[in-house]
Amino acid sequence: MNLYISICHRSIHTRNKALQKIPTKAEIDVKFNFTKHSNTINLINKDISSYWNKTVTLQGWIDKKPKKLGKNIAFATLRDFEGNFTQIISKDESIVEKLQRSQIEDCISITGKITERFSKENEDNEMRWDLNIEELNTLNSSDILTSQLESLKTLPNEFPQQYRYLQLRLPYYQKALKTRSKTSNLIRNHLINDLNFTEIETPLLFKSTPEGAREFLVPTRKNSMFYALPQSPQQYKQLLMASGVKNYFQIAKCFRDEDLRSDRQPEFTQVDLEMSFAKSRDVQDVIESVVSKVFKEVGQNEVLTLNENGGAVKGPFIHLEYDEVISKYGIDKPDLRSNLKIENISEFVKNPINKEFPITEVLVLKNAFNGKANLPKTLFNDLEYKNRKPTIVPIKTDDDITNWMNKIPFELINVKKLQSQLQLSQGDVIAFSTRSNISYENPTPLGRFRQLAIQEFPSQWRRCKEDENIAIWVENFPLFNPIEIETNSKQDYPQYDYTKFESTHHPFTMVNLNDYESLFSDPLAVNGDHYDLVINGMEIGGGSRRIHDSSIQKYILKEILGINNYNELFGHLIKALELGCPPHAGFAIGFDRLMTILINTNTIRDVIAFPKTSNGSDLVVNSPSDVDNATLKQYFVQKL
Amino acid sequence: MNLYISICHRSIHTRNKALQKIPTKAEIDVKFNFTKHSNTINLINKDISSYWNKTVTLQGWIDKKPKKLGKNIAFATLRDFEGNFTQIISKDESIVEKLQRSQIEDCISITGKITERFSKENEDNEMRWDLNIEELNTLNSSDILTSQLESLKTLPNEFPQQYRYLQLRLPYYQKALKTRSKTSNLIRNHLINDLNFTEIETPLLFKSTPEGAREFLVPTRKNSMFYALPQSPQQYKQLLMASGVKNYFQIAKCFRDEDLRSDRQPEFTQVDLEMSFAKSRDVQDVIESVVSKVFKEVGQNEVLTLNENGGAVKGPFIHLEYDEVISKYGIDKPDLRSNLKIENISEFVKNPINKEFPITEVLVLKNAFNGKANLPKTLFNDLEYKNRKPTIVPIKTDDDITNWMNKIPFELINVKKLQSQLQLSQGDVIAFSTRSNISYENPTPLGRFRQLAIQEFPSQWRRCKEDENIAIWVENFPLFNPIEIETNSKQDYPQYDYTKFESTHHPFTMVNLNDYESLFSDPLAVNGDHYDLVINGMEIGGGSRRIHDSSIQKYILKEILGINNYNELFGHLIKALELGCPPHAGFAIGFDRLMTILINTNTIRDVIAFPKTSNGSDLVVNSPSDVDNATLKQYFVQKL
Repeated sequence: MNLYISICHRSIHTRNKALQKIPTKAEIDVKFNFTKHSNTINLINKDISSYWNKTVTLQGWIDKKPKKLGKNIAFATLRDFEGNFTQIISKDESIVEKLQRSQIEDCISITGKITERFSKENEDNEMRWDLNIEELNTLNSSDILTSQLESLKTLPNEFPQQYRYLQLRLPYYQKALKTRSKTSNLIRNHLINDLNFTEIETPLLFKSTPEGAREFLVPTRKNSMFYALPQSPQQYKQLLMASGVKNYFQIAKCFRDEDLRSDRQPEFTQVDLEMSFAKSRDVQDVIESVVSKVFKEVGQNEVLTLNENGGAVKGPFIHLEYDEVISKYGIDKPDLRSNLKIENISEFVKNPINKEFPITEVLVLKNAFNGKANLPKTLFNDLEYKNRKPTIVPIKTDDDITNWMNKIPFELINVKKLQSQLQLSQGDVIAFSTRSNISYENPTPLGRFRQLAIQEFPSQWRRCKEDENIAIWVENFPLFNPIEIETNSKQDYPQYDYTKFESTHHPFTMVNLNDYESLFSDPLAVNGDHYDLVINGMEIGGGSRRIHDSSIQKYILKEILGINNYNELFGHLIKALELGCPPHAGFAIGFDRLMTILINTNTIRDVIAFPKTSNGSDLVVNSPSDVDNATLKQYFVQKL
Repeated sequence: MNLYISICHRSIHTRNKALQKIPTKAEIDVKFNFTKHSNTINLINKDISSYWNKTVTLQGWIDKKPKKLGKNIAFATLRDFEGNFTQIISKDESIVEKLQRSQIEDCISITGKITERFSKENEDNEMRWDLNIEELNTLNSSDILTSQLESLKTLPNEFPQQYRYLQLRLPYYQKALKTRSKTSNLIRNHLINDLNFTEIETPLLFKSTPEGAREFLVPTRKNSMFYALPQSPQQYKQLLMASGVKNYFQIAKCFRDEDLRSDRQPEFTQVDLEMSFAKSRDVQDVIESVVSKVFKEVGQNEVLTLNENGGAVKGPFIHLEYDEVISKYGIDKPDLRSNLKIENISEFVKNPINKEFPITEVLVLKNAFNGKANLPKTLFNDLEYKNRKPTIVPIKTDDDITNWMNKIPFELINVKKLQSQLQLSQGDVIAFSTRSNISYENPTPLGRFRQLAIQEFPSQWRRCKEDENIAIWVENFPLFNPIEIETNSKQDYPQYDYTKFESTHHPFTMVNLNDYESLFSDPLAVNGDHYDLVINGMEIGGGSRRIHDSSIQKYILKEILGINNYNELFGHLIKALELGCPPHAGFAIGFDRLMTILINTNTIRDVIAFPKTSNGSDLVVNSPSDVDNATLKQYFVQKL
């Protein structure tokens, strides 16, 4: 990074000097009084035969450092403002000289004649003609910094993010921004025109309701009074249901002051919706329609789902139960492009080692070695696992096919049947672990192992082609979790306080009607009417039927969750339920994540114009920044 | 308000008691396990002939208190979730009883047969059939509070805003919300599909750049580090121009921590756009296309403009100069639905009373009395004027036609010519005042008088019909103002410090090319390339060509505006200009204000679902609210 720091310092010096040099009127005229572009490269490409020898004006940037050929010919590449390329060329002495003085990323306007390619040597298929420069005007010049940064542009992790705008000039990012715009517009049109939704903006200056993630606070000019930025429009959209809105949606900015991970940003966008006089299935139908349409019109492939036999097919997304996906895949958001499946071998275990974790499971990676001598180290790395790591046994030799059982810390019974069920061969890997009946560990040790195996063996154990997408519904989650006891040391088994509960999703989720009566006797036994949409192992969104009965809502807040000041925090919502609020259900799609799948990238940074770094900084504008005490005083706060 | 406070207290008591009463499974089934609506009232109305005697299920609310007629017939009105009405009726004893127990605003589901109106007495044209109830289910009940509030619903100023959701159930508000959704979608489709724009989200967690209005700050979990919420996406959109985006737009949330007026909210929405390789006229063409389309497809009338003779006509919006509108109408956002025009009578004044205010003007309200004995008091109310009030002389008698001149505190010359020019008659009102050559008073005393006259005489001196809209461009504003010297007392003439300048709009506005050289010698003499769109006397939006030359930008920030830490505040933007940023210009439409014109209301509160009160509170959720010290500590701040 030192290179860039010293560049910055140098440029500050130049800047101070520049203050004394004011452009002349003639220089300003060139920059501001320009002729408007008559064409774009794309328009000319589409109809090149009628453009030969025509004079056009094009505008954009110098994409590669101009080169001189022979005595008096100079070339350069123009990238126009649509991200297309053409070669510009001149044999005129003064223009050649001007072109040679140009920097990469100078912003230029060129008027010239369209001619055949002068040199076919470095023929680039995208560039089918030359623009013979008649007039070259520099609308704004670039400086030495841009050419120094040029080679880093395609390396998102190495490009200095304070110059993000230079990186965004790459056609890849321009396309990502356009695809995002097209997608949000497609979603809006589908919801508004086809599905009778109304987009309604809800306030961003909201109230602190400390539930779930940490909030951002906004001091006001009233003593001790603060707004909070919303984590989602959840409460306002439920109030809109009480307001008589039939189908609400909003593509909404949301805020979460959490420690950031690769797929999280402190501000993010969600497609938020809610429907009154509706049940969960009505909402799921809408979401499925939206997602299918988006993949069809914007994605590189339509979205597939599973059939009952586990095949990848088109059609309505399959509905899987939480219990089922935890048993088979060890996580509530399984990547079902892979057909790796966990097997329950509890029947073969004589005495489980920990009574709270009675289920014993294995996951077999068939032919994981595939001729190679070693397995990826990631699979064995303790840091990749939250608590426990499964025991992982490579089957390297014929002996291992039977010997692996010796590595298990408990006694197996009925071994023959087990062996015949597993059908191990040389080259396989077997991993085993345990879990509790209702697993609050999510992922389980084997679920995490499965994720790592998918990551390390991207083309093995697949049920669909590499670029195909698999979507599933996961539903019937436990409505509450026991609270995990936090410890400082990493321990084998997570510990839970089974007398204290938290909502698995949020406290407004309705219990499954079948479980209603258990809500009052055994809260941990009930499932909620919540549903997640999972695509390619990513939770693309979640939703639920909400509680519209105020007495159930109060019971859950006070008696189950123990929120004694529930009325201060949520009184507005409870009152709204009491004044004839209709039944309702809703959903929120994580729009940034959806976009990463649609443009096929691993990083959320590619679909956001100005993302924040992992410590919440925007290096372009240098935020957050210090604020002086006098300003803070107006808001009745001071620094600690 | 006492009534509602006591209701609230009572309901808290009821609530605590209610906690002990948990609904039975059967009660919950009625509320949650409802049959889906088969129809809406609108669908049935459209095709009533095929619905006679058919059984349908409708859902909505009880709109009026059910009534009993004779021995065993009960009626009520159902308002369905689309805001349409039908009469529901029953002769079945148990249903009659159930209906009688129902409250206004109970949320209900009704299955029944469609029959002819039972009673034609109170025939309401909207209700053309009865729904004969076969099954009535209460999906959620309302309480006594709703009927107490019922009569206040249509009175926005008297309705207790903590129950805003009840008010929003009125068809008027439902329609306003839908029109807003339709309008934003129309704008997006036009910009994206017809005009090649890309919608790009810019960060809301921005940096404090204390220019213009007061900002909202957001403390972070880094010591002394704060985000600020943006007053507009101005800087980010200019960075997007440096990023190679051709045409950017965003329907963006903006924040301003100002004392609120009737048309201001702390958070508001703007249609924000910016175009690279473009000049102001290119931007104006886009805005005119958007606004015309919106008025044509959403408004009650298309938007008109003026022709050169002052007639109201369709066509491209007329371009007026700042100097011209100040002279003729005394304000930079004149309401040109009125043809009231200020006349300059300086040539008739021998010695102006204050040399800084050499221009003397009059505004005549022809036939203002119009048979009435008195003029509206508002015209004479000191509090309605910021500084000076014009001298206002009613022409009540024939004598007044000549005598009015005696009330002027300076000597007039060439009186005959003046009188013949003014053509006063009995019943007129003449107002006169003075102003400076370049008026920084905006409105001028006569400009304010003109506004008040338009407000008090809504149907007089009009150039168009009452429901027609007039749009104009105002351009060529002074680029800088001298800073007004604040005093505690209200004084006749505003005082300016002519050695200190502030930007009339913002520091990124380019000077008019013709005035370029004066920028360095006489900043107050130069005009900026800024343009406002004014409709019906409201500033609907403003825009400008921006400075893309870093040395001019630095000169203005440092040398003219005296911002010594300009590099700390705006260094990111200056650096972006230096790295080949193209020429660009842009605009922002105040979307909330545009909506008030489109739905023809005086208050911005009608077009926002959950507006804040004039002191920034949201009474629905009760924000802002107190936050405890422990929470604040995480953000390295404490209360003062």
